[in-house]
Amino acid sequence: MPVTGILPGLTSSDADEFESALMKFVDSRDLPLYKMMAYHLGWVDQNGEPEIVTNQDRSHGHIVLATSKAAGGDNQGTMPYAVAVELLHNFILVHEDVQNANTERNNRASIWWSWGPAQAINAGDGIHAMARISIFEQRKSSGVSANPRLISMALETLDNATLEVCEGEYLDISYQERAAVNIEDVLTVARKRGAVLGCAAKLGGIAAAASEDLLNSLTRFGTAIGTARNLNTDLRALWPEQNTERNEVQRGRLQSKKKSLAAAHAIENGTPATRRRMGEIFMKRVLGPDDIDEVTSILSETESRSFAENTVQNLIAEAIGEIESTNFSNEDKNSLIESAKLIVRSH
Amino acid sequence: MPVTGILPGLTSSDADEFESALMKFVDSRDLPLYKMMAYHLGWVDQNGEPEIVTNQDRSHGHIVLATSKAAGGDNQGTMPYAVAVELLHNFILVHEDVQNANTERNNRASIWWSWGPAQAINAGDGIHAMARISIFEQRKSSGVSANPRLISMALETLDNATLEVCEGEYLDISYQERAAVNIEDVLTVARKRGAVLGCAAKLGGIAAAASEDLLNSLTRFGTAIGTARNLNTDLRALWPEQNTERNEVQRGRLQSKKKSLAAAHAIENGTPATRRRMGEIFMKRVLGPDDIDEVTSILSETESRSFAENTVQNLIAEAIGEIESTNFSNEDKNSLIESAKLIVRSH
Repeated sequence: MPVTGILPGLTSSDADEFESALMKFVDSRDLPLYKMMAYHLGWVDQNGEPEIVTNQDRSHGHIVLATSKAAGGDNQGTMPYAVAVELLHNFILVHEDVQNANTERNNRASIWWSWGPAQAINAGDGIHAMARISIFEQRKSSGVSANPRLISMALETLDNATLEVCEGEYLDISYQERAAVNIEDVLTVARKRGAVLGCAAKLGGIAAAASEDLLNSLTRFGTAIGTARNLNTDLRALWPEQNTERNEVQRGRLQSKKKSLAAAHAIENGTPATRRRMGEIFMKRVLGPDDIDEVTSILSETESRSFAENTVQNLIAEAIGEIESTNFSNEDKNSLIESAKLIVRSH
Repeated sequence: MPVTGILPGLTSSDADEFESALMKFVDSRDLPLYKMMAYHLGWVDQNGEPEIVTNQDRSHGHIVLATSKAAGGDNQGTMPYAVAVELLHNFILVHEDVQNANTERNNRASIWWSWGPAQAINAGDGIHAMARISIFEQRKSSGVSANPRLISMALETLDNATLEVCEGEYLDISYQERAAVNIEDVLTVARKRGAVLGCAAKLGGIAAAASEDLLNSLTRFGTAIGTARNLNTDLRALWPEQNTERNEVQRGRLQSKKKSLAAAHAIENGTPATRRRMGEIFMKRVLGPDDIDEVTSILSETESRSFAENTVQNLIAEAIGEIESTNFSNEDKNSLIESAKLIVRSH
């Protein structure tokens, strides 16, 4: 499934409130730069005319609201944090589209494809700055979440998560041209890039002024989901779900030889012949459709597919364990567990 | 002159202290991502082996120390802010090198030229996050500068400056393919991109817990210098100083048809024939050496060069006026005024 829609535990009014907070924050600024951001976020077309895209993934913002709600926070105080994480996630996507040369994002031309790489890099940088500026808005709200110590903790969490994503991205890119990539390497990348969802879950806790123990549980919960989601994106790129085709982002990762967990498993555990064949394929500059077909059939033979599927299941179990360990109500626990499963499967 | 060296009012021990704070902050992290940053900052070669580049421009970090000193701050408390602004400036350079396809930066291969655009975008994003993380270090210091309200103000100043630079960058890029660019348009870009030096001067004031009035004066001082520096970079690209050649960054701006103040002046005030000729040149996809020679001779004829030179002088006068209005000691005033002139002329 392509997007999460509204997460269990949230109402459509929560989702509307979030969407209008996000929109209001971006719309409050007037230059064409912000129209480009509004295009990426699915509210206007390339000319800046209203055009609502209905299937946008807002799981990053929504999970902030969901963890805050479970921890006793309120929507109003949580909104600037939810907006911040959604923007953080989107800044990363905008830059990823340039880095992987993705022509499309969410079935529309990506920013770099429409406006060129220079504008796309710049728009991403702008969204990155906006993510943090959103947190400063928090000072205007009332209640516990306006506590300066919490605001500062939220900012630091956001920046540390960003840096961790950059560390992961560095490794992910450097593995493109290497055949010798092992399971631990790929897991490290997926975990580091999963820091955004870890940050999202934690920020919900911060908005609710949760205890340090709870914040740690929420971070581990979110990071496990984020890690699983990254691994699952690669799995669905290799083996699309029934009746779906690879999207541009998935195709981009395969063609550019980004290493999946399944590929690393085959490289680490395959017979010498399998390893040699994988090496030959990864020697090519860009992978074509036949190469990708051959890779997927090798990975099924070596049981690398099931290894990767199991790893995703274990990470989901880890996320569930973290939620079970909290003193959230059973209803909230169930909602967060179902949300985790949805987010992992979305891409 | 290519770089500022040590600004008047600072000692070589101040500069050493700054350099080791910057180096320690980047070196405290261990992944290859940080080696790439160390390469860009001039401490190691492309393989991560020590290689000190002596002519690095550190004016952004140094001006933070200089304004703090004048306002009564101390080096120790100011250091995290100085490191933050230096990194902010460098994140922008790393992305600019990708955006303008600059093969060199400071006479060495740029990050994108050595490691490709994907790694360069990512390294820039990492430096951007590091800039803010440096400010969190401030909490560990003692004295007034560790005040949470001041730290929060510093972070917000940094983020707002970044967003302003992105707004300027958007306009700058969008003017590349337009001939109809007027004087006000170019000044807006230069002013918005000058926000980094405005932020630098203000952060020095924040480190010294300066009054709001003084912070405003320092912001205007720094922004005027930053604006003048941007305009001067274009002037020196069109008319290099005696015995110097255009560097890659200057050549990049000319070839990619970034609009200088002088060009905007000629477009706005030239005869119909001049305007038509300028339009024909800017219709080309990329400008070659002959085109650039023709542009420079038109701009001298239309007195557009002297218009731009005068604008730079007026901005320097504006910066001086802001410093004169403060109650800094005469010695500090003179040092800051001389620093301003050096920074404008450096590139």
